[in-house]
Amino acid sequence: MITVIEALDHLFSLVAPLPTEQVGLAEAAGRCMVAPAKANRDQPPFSASAMDGYAVRGEDAQPGKTLTVIGEAAAGHALDGTVETGQAARIFTGAPLPQGADRVVIQEDVSRNGDQITIADTLEDNPFVRPMGADFKSGQEVSAPRLLRATDIALLAAMNIPEITVTRKPQVALISTGDELVMPGDTPGPDQIIVSNTYGLKAMLDGIGAHARILPIARDNRASLEACFDLAQGADLVVTIGGASVGDHDLVGDVAASLGMERSFYKVAMRPGKPLMAGRMNGAAMVGLPGNPVSAMVCGHVFLAPMIRAMLGLGKTLPPRYEARLAHDLDASGPREHYMRAEVHDGQITPEPRQDSALLSVLANANALMIRPAGDPPRKAGEVIQYLPL
Amino acid sequence: MITVIEALDHLFSLVAPLPTEQVGLAEAAGRCMVAPAKANRDQPPFSASAMDGYAVRGEDAQPGKTLTVIGEAAAGHALDGTVETGQAARIFTGAPLPQGADRVVIQEDVSRNGDQITIADTLEDNPFVRPMGADFKSGQEVSAPRLLRATDIALLAAMNIPEITVTRKPQVALISTGDELVMPGDTPGPDQIIVSNTYGLKAMLDGIGAHARILPIARDNRASLEACFDLAQGADLVVTIGGASVGDHDLVGDVAASLGMERSFYKVAMRPGKPLMAGRMNGAAMVGLPGNPVSAMVCGHVFLAPMIRAMLGLGKTLPPRYEARLAHDLDASGPREHYMRAEVHDGQITPEPRQDSALLSVLANANALMIRPAGDPPRKAGEVIQYLPL
Repeated sequence: MITVIEALDHLFSLVAPLPTEQVGLAEAAGRCMVAPAKANRDQPPFSASAMDGYAVRGEDAQPGKTLTVIGEAAAGHALDGTVETGQAARIFTGAPLPQGADRVVIQEDVSRNGDQITIADTLEDNPFVRPMGADFKSGQEVSAPRLLRATDIALLAAMNIPEITVTRKPQVALISTGDELVMPGDTPGPDQIIVSNTYGLKAMLDGIGAHARILPIARDNRASLEACFDLAQGADLVVTIGGASVGDHDLVGDVAASLGMERSFYKVAMRPGKPLMAGRMNGAAMVGLPGNPVSAMVCGHVFLAPMIRAMLGLGKTLPPRYEARLAHDLDASGPREHYMRAEVHDGQITPEPRQDSALLSVLANANALMIRPAGDPPRKAGEVIQYLPL
Repeated sequence: MITVIEALDHLFSLVAPLPTEQVGLAEAAGRCMVAPAKANRDQPPFSASAMDGYAVRGEDAQPGKTLTVIGEAAAGHALDGTVETGQAARIFTGAPLPQGADRVVIQEDVSRNGDQITIADTLEDNPFVRPMGADFKSGQEVSAPRLLRATDIALLAAMNIPEITVTRKPQVALISTGDELVMPGDTPGPDQIIVSNTYGLKAMLDGIGAHARILPIARDNRASLEACFDLAQGADLVVTIGGASVGDHDLVGDVAASLGMERSFYKVAMRPGKPLMAGRMNGAAMVGLPGNPVSAMVCGHVFLAPMIRAMLGLGKTLPPRYEARLAHDLDASGPREHYMRAEVHDGQITPEPRQDSALLSVLANANALMIRPAGDPPRKAGEVIQYLPL
């Protein structure tokens, strides 16, 4: 058996960053920007007023002083003129500070009478000026690779970058295999169950920036499997679920081999999800996951998500782990790394009482996979333990 | 001034859960399921083998005992027959347990010779049977309202629920106002800046289940504002950004009133983002946010996100808050609730050194809004403080 990290190393060798494409900024959220973006301008592009008030020269900002208002500056409408000693300009938030002025007296600190203002007896110290380039300067970079969040999008807009170079979305083809499966909405025979893992994996993979397609169910015969592999063409990653171990009913590996896949089988020292098949076929990476629904979803988080991130150009790294404190004591763990379905609330983690890997109801109730290393000793309540969020 | 909670109460009075629609399960991730879903069947629908091995009667599971193999049961292919005393059936993971058998001896615990198997001297205690209905029983519910995650989708598939009743996506129209603004990709004049808040808000709102449209920039005149409000028709929520305070250049409230909005202005005791306008116009909720980019995004998290959740049918509640420990001491906070841009790592929260609400570069660097209540006393490193994730 190999470790999870060794298995991931094999899987990473099958993928590389995908080609790029251009997207408009309004569609760029959640995409992976591949090259640093450079600001096309300073922000603010001029020294700007931070408040509504009056722009004055510093030496005139004296309690009780009376000044003459010579004009007005609003956002988008600079004052065409210079504020001289003894003068002020009405100014609004975001407006360019007029020539000559270097501070703003807020309107609450001023009384006005015609074109005269008198500064109050008490005056705020703050100059209420946003210096040119205080947010960013022309040429300043937003680093890459980067999964773009809403706040990045706002910053890129302000930098006047209307189009972004992002990695093409990884195309994933999902194939469930097995004579026992029917699609949701079909009427199952007495020996049959409803396919669920392709639906769960599609939602999970789409959520991290892939575009997953659910292909028809492959039956346990060569013709059906070959037809499904044919439908998978064009995918960057082909995922089969079920039939990947070495039992009598596991045709997937044989059929994939006959279609040119150089494949490897891995027994990974993990629970759930021991058997794994991986290789490359027709220019795509291919991974065979165990058919057990919970195992398939756990392998999706542990193996497929890092492969997607690698294809997006985010590097070949373990999925980020979080930490929480155990809610109660735990017995020693077995020889395989165990991904236990668990609930995290307020920094406390509680494993679900039932860990059978067939239980989707337990998985849906969980919000974390608590990670127990191979051979983990007994743990006490309050100890810190790592988890993957679900 | 009113508190954030009082302002939210006003905003909640403007919205109600939206009508529902049906979506296919493959498109249901991230949508709000409005009514509990009921399992259409038991899972597993029969007692099933949890492993590859041999199905036997409990009394025959004795070390050293030899049994006769009468047939085979595979997933999707039940054995048509009964396992009698002295007999066994070859069985594979997920196959229905044959009549008569009540446990599975795994293949590792058996040696086979023709149609005879002999059980090993040591035998695992586990019966390796998944009882009928162990995952869920027919009629068992998935509770609602619920934002559907990948694990919910997998469970609903297994329950044979191919279509889900979800709330229609809230349609949001985003209008930035101001003569100083141009769209990304345009060439700004010397007094102008690039619009950013509609882009940031669209990404944020789309990410929580809304569908946001960026409308053209409204200029600081009645005709332009009226044209933009006209384009907003059909939206459930119209958001204007900028021009919502009571300064000389704030036409938005006047124009909205002339178009029939019963509006209110609120001064909210929060930083950043004090002024807020809200009302209903032409059947839509309308909210006017401050024009400052960071204020607009903070108000998006604090006010718009809860409104979207209410429209989705998730209830009228405060946005969920998380907790982290302060990385260093903090001075006392002012009279307004302060949403400080901050970074959370490993349970520790560090506010950004620069909190000016014009700085999008600081916001993009943050991953949290640290919440300091109004009048919060000085805080020590290590104290627990609440935040909203960004």
